[in-house]
Amino acid sequence: MKFGGTSMAGTERIRTVAALVKREVEAGNEVAVVVSAMAGETDRLVQFCREANPLYDEAEYDVVVASGEQVTSGLLALTLQAMGVPARSWLGWQLPIRTIETHAKARITEIETDALIAAMKSGQVAVIPGFQGMMEDGRVSTLGRGGSDTSAVAVAAAVKADRCDIYTDVDGVYTTDPRIVSRARKLDYVTYEEMLELASVGAKVLQTRSVGLAMKMGVRVQVLSSFVEPGQAPKAGTLIVSDEEIEELKMERQLITGIAYDKNEAKIILTRVPDRPGAVATIFKPLADAAINVDMIIQNVGREKGETDVTFTVPRADLARSLEILEGGKDSIGYNRLLHESGVAKVSVVGVGMKSHAGVAATMFEALAARGINIQAISTSEIKVSVLIEEDYTELAVRVLHTAYGLDAEEAA
Amino acid sequence: MKFGGTSMAGTERIRTVAALVKREVEAGNEVAVVVSAMAGETDRLVQFCREANPLYDEAEYDVVVASGEQVTSGLLALTLQAMGVPARSWLGWQLPIRTIETHAKARITEIETDALIAAMKSGQVAVIPGFQGMMEDGRVSTLGRGGSDTSAVAVAAAVKADRCDIYTDVDGVYTTDPRIVSRARKLDYVTYEEMLELASVGAKVLQTRSVGLAMKMGVRVQVLSSFVEPGQAPKAGTLIVSDEEIEELKMERQLITGIAYDKNEAKIILTRVPDRPGAVATIFKPLADAAINVDMIIQNVGREKGETDVTFTVPRADLARSLEILEGGKDSIGYNRLLHESGVAKVSVVGVGMKSHAGVAATMFEALAARGINIQAISTSEIKVSVLIEEDYTELAVRVLHTAYGLDAEEAA
Repeated sequence: MKFGGTSMAGTERIRTVAALVKREVEAGNEVAVVVSAMAGETDRLVQFCREANPLYDEAEYDVVVASGEQVTSGLLALTLQAMGVPARSWLGWQLPIRTIETHAKARITEIETDALIAAMKSGQVAVIPGFQGMMEDGRVSTLGRGGSDTSAVAVAAAVKADRCDIYTDVDGVYTTDPRIVSRARKLDYVTYEEMLELASVGAKVLQTRSVGLAMKMGVRVQVLSSFVEPGQAPKAGTLIVSDEEIEELKMERQLITGIAYDKNEAKIILTRVPDRPGAVATIFKPLADAAINVDMIIQNVGREKGETDVTFTVPRADLARSLEILEGGKDSIGYNRLLHESGVAKVSVVGVGMKSHAGVAATMFEALAARGINIQAISTSEIKVSVLIEEDYTELAVRVLHTAYGLDAEEAA
Repeated sequence: MKFGGTSMAGTERIRTVAALVKREVEAGNEVAVVVSAMAGETDRLVQFCREANPLYDEAEYDVVVASGEQVTSGLLALTLQAMGVPARSWLGWQLPIRTIETHAKARITEIETDALIAAMKSGQVAVIPGFQGMMEDGRVSTLGRGGSDTSAVAVAAAVKADRCDIYTDVDGVYTTDPRIVSRARKLDYVTYEEMLELASVGAKVLQTRSVGLAMKMGVRVQVLSSFVEPGQAPKAGTLIVSDEEIEELKMERQLITGIAYDKNEAKIILTRVPDRPGAVATIFKPLADAAINVDMIIQNVGREKGETDVTFTVPRADLARSLEILEGGKDSIGYNRLLHESGVAKVSVVGVGMKSHAGVAATMFEALAARGINIQAISTSEIKVSVLIEEDYTELAVRVLHTAYGLDAEEAA
């Protein structure tokens, strides 16, 4: 079981969490719980670090920010004990949760589970602070923001858990953002691949990295709400499982699982780039070196022979830096003009079902054209079709597509 | 160097602390720093524990409250780095600082210093969270409130430091409370024994336990103020050293070092207790078993032969519990009446000099009698004379004695 910052925000909320844990224990389950810091606490600690040293040493940053989860793990253990449930906290260095690579964005390599499993078998709930681990040199590490989801999946994999329940402030994964489409439906299940596409294009339910890890380790994840009526069982959320499990269970397949959108894109156009081998590499290599994530790439044949226009998107936050790099590389790339635009959005239809169905993209283009929405760029994967459109049309496009693929619920969500 | 909670309260204050540390480094010293949590933080964390579980498990309490010093140790290391001073934090479990006995009031048994001394020799400032350690079973422990002073003395002893500078919000130890006597003088030095008497009777500058440890380990301690003008050197505080060091330095001896008072006393009187062997034990054994600290004890011969009145003091906070225990023991003790009074105070004159001087007590009794202050009880040790008086006369008594022993400064402090 994993609980996020809003679920752990104060002793009153922690009691609700403890009641959910107690329910699982009473159902006969052996339980490990991974917790986040209280909502706002990590921000407070990060702010302290920035004030202390704007160019902070990430080893010390980790010492400071890891304290937030240390506090909530102790408090949840105390609260469970007060409810008569045996429990103890296991800090990252106590298990230990071994990590490598860099401080502040460490990667879990191994979790020692002997003591943990022995404690769980003895009927004691193990409470584990998320987000933290220990480096090979014995220093504290953290996994980067949102790392507690990854901690939970890693612990679930290490103890070979039947399921990893991630409690959050939404009750599951929806066909699209319910704030845009009131008839959005909660999904009973999605595949890891679908969840990755939905997460990376805007459905902010689970940290992307944790979904990738769950897929790799075969951990069955459930996303569900920690906001339950006192004494009530939590409502079933959305199960994130492998394509094979869905096949085996012969669950009914939708053609399209969901519609995602992302307004954090910016478009860059380089005109009249020489159309020769290696030209494209001179554009994208320096951006990759600067860790800028280039997404949709389209190459148009230019007006002049031997020249081409190159269009692509980058995260809006990286736009200024991208332009600076491209201006610096003008001579080696050899483009004519450098254009950019921030007012764009990416809308995607996602579904494993499209692997075996033609016509998904055509439906999308027709539905958008019928409402006069112009497509600026297209990219596709096995289970996704994305289009870049003018930002102002985002909500309209999402609604149109939600209806076009038959995703609307009978009644409003 | 040790800095308390008010010195560590926020990144701005921590910069002042870092500047003081930098000054020592630039003077060519190898420095370890022990820090408290930000002022108010430990109270906040204790409150969380109480809310989570009124009968809290002290192992988990330790996990929660130790986080406060973890944060400040990381922040001070970051701040030092920002000032160009190499520094790193060493958490209790990283050194480790080994402790035994019970959680929440653990006792340091050993500090491993190899890595610490190597780091300090390499020019890196070691920042160590106070108050915390690690139990033999690998769990987090804390030393009890105010334990950071003890941590500092223990670290100083372990690395064989030349001096342990305890920075606080006062600039040293005074002949008495300057709020009562404006002409109180800051002492240049006191002996460990004097400091113990001054601390335990009310001069709240250093945690008593840390003074005891310093005496046992022969650590030279200086108490001084962390509130200095930017760029200025801190003013010399009060040095706490052995009697022998003072002899060697041939420093001038005062007859009396200081006047202390304690308003947290309550007086209990048992009348007509049988005057037979073992009678007194039946009174004090159950109080000792309940960890109630009995202080001044006077036995008066009673009016009837074979009977005696027994008067003693206990901390005011323990009065109700003491009365309950004594009422329960009425038959076995065999007293007639159980009387008590809270409106009493203990005033003490302290000084190593009195070992070699007669007449110290007589001066005290005469000075108090001259102002009509009635003495209810007297107790003495080698370096202290204490009297119990009516609480309302406390300030008057302190002033009278401060003048009587020639402690008044030329000008007001």
